[in-house]
Amino acid sequence: MKETQDKRISSAVISRLPRYYRYLGELRESGVERISSNELSARMKVTASQIRQDLNNFGGFGQQGYGYNVAYLQQEIAKILGIDKTYNMIIVGAGNLGQAIAGYADFEKRGFVVKGIFDINPELTGTMIRGIQVRMAYEMKDFVRNNNIDIAALTIPKESAVEIASMLADAGIKAIWNFAHTDLNLPKEIVVENVHLSESLMKLSYNMANRLREEREEE
Amino acid sequence: MKETQDKRISSAVISRLPRYYRYLGELRESGVERISSNELSARMKVTASQIRQDLNNFGGFGQQGYGYNVAYLQQEIAKILGIDKTYNMIIVGAGNLGQAIAGYADFEKRGFVVKGIFDINPELTGTMIRGIQVRMAYEMKDFVRNNNIDIAALTIPKESAVEIASMLADAGIKAIWNFAHTDLNLPKEIVVENVHLSESLMKLSYNMANRLREEREEE
Repeated sequence: MKETQDKRISSAVISRLPRYYRYLGELRESGVERISSNELSARMKVTASQIRQDLNNFGGFGQQGYGYNVAYLQQEIAKILGIDKTYNMIIVGAGNLGQAIAGYADFEKRGFVVKGIFDINPELTGTMIRGIQVRMAYEMKDFVRNNNIDIAALTIPKESAVEIASMLADAGIKAIWNFAHTDLNLPKEIVVENVHLSESLMKLSYNMANRLREEREEE
Repeated sequence: MKETQDKRISSAVISRLPRYYRYLGELRESGVERISSNELSARMKVTASQIRQDLNNFGGFGQQGYGYNVAYLQQEIAKILGIDKTYNMIIVGAGNLGQAIAGYADFEKRGFVVKGIFDINPELTGTMIRGIQVRMAYEMKDFVRNNNIDIAALTIPKESAVEIASMLADAGIKAIWNFAHTDLNLPKEIVVENVHLSESLMKLSYNMANRLREEREEE
């Protein structure tokens, strides 16, 4: 794969890659070594031509009439997604959401290693969450600098998120996984991936409302 | 707004509406009654023409040279998003993620009322999470039927998610907010909104990897 090819890939294709990765992982686990785009299409409920088009963006990994090598294809998608590397992560906010993230063994399996959890509540000092020590927020800046932390997951209220994000930016963080319900407005070198749960819930209610409108029109 | 207009609205516009809703809410809280598309554009860091185009999808709520009425616009967006109504919700899975969702006061403020939390762990029977009783999974089907439950948030491992989702479908659930890392394949009348956290983390790592590739090319 030539590096220059990457730039032309649409964000729609990129957003579909994790799903390919997941299905290929399940196929590997069940011992499947090779799969045709038609079989993959039936499992994933997308058209075979969509699959071929998506994968052709990366030079195409299949051979006509021979299908895809499952392990190889998964590995190449891992490279494109950057999950063939290891990242050091901290979690900022030791509440339920922070604890939920700390508890996902899957993240660590994919190379996202949680190195520290931070909170402002002094009562939590020294407590352990899944073997990781909770530290105080004032230690965060030095910790990020001294431990090559790449990613910070922000699971804190929106009121403090903007300030903490810019402190993390000063400390050299490369990416923020933002669960706080606000925009962060950081320098563009810093990757921000937002998970706004209430926006997701609004999309759900929009689709419910829309379904009702359609039903009414059909009557 | 005519109901038939809705159908032509692209999903890109829809996915931007919750963000408009959030900014308009913040403006209302700070006492702003009226705002021009230029001012809103500066705050939201999108172009004023994008804002005008997006809102024109719904008949346009502004007057030339006069701006938007903040309260009215927010209320109209709430109607489009279907959050001018109240929904009954249950949470399936009383782990950290389920507890985090039960704890978001914001959801209730927007009309998503948590009526019950379910788990399979008998030790949790009768415990209370934010004033809501944890019930056992075997009670779920009757509970959904008897309490007009609209939405189920699934915060359970993928292994049990497909089975529980189809049981909920049988019980008449209208929508599933799916945090389990799997596709559910339900009848199309049921709205499914997925929150796949590991896919979000892969998009983050893709963007980090891509930024590195760009930097290398610039050197």
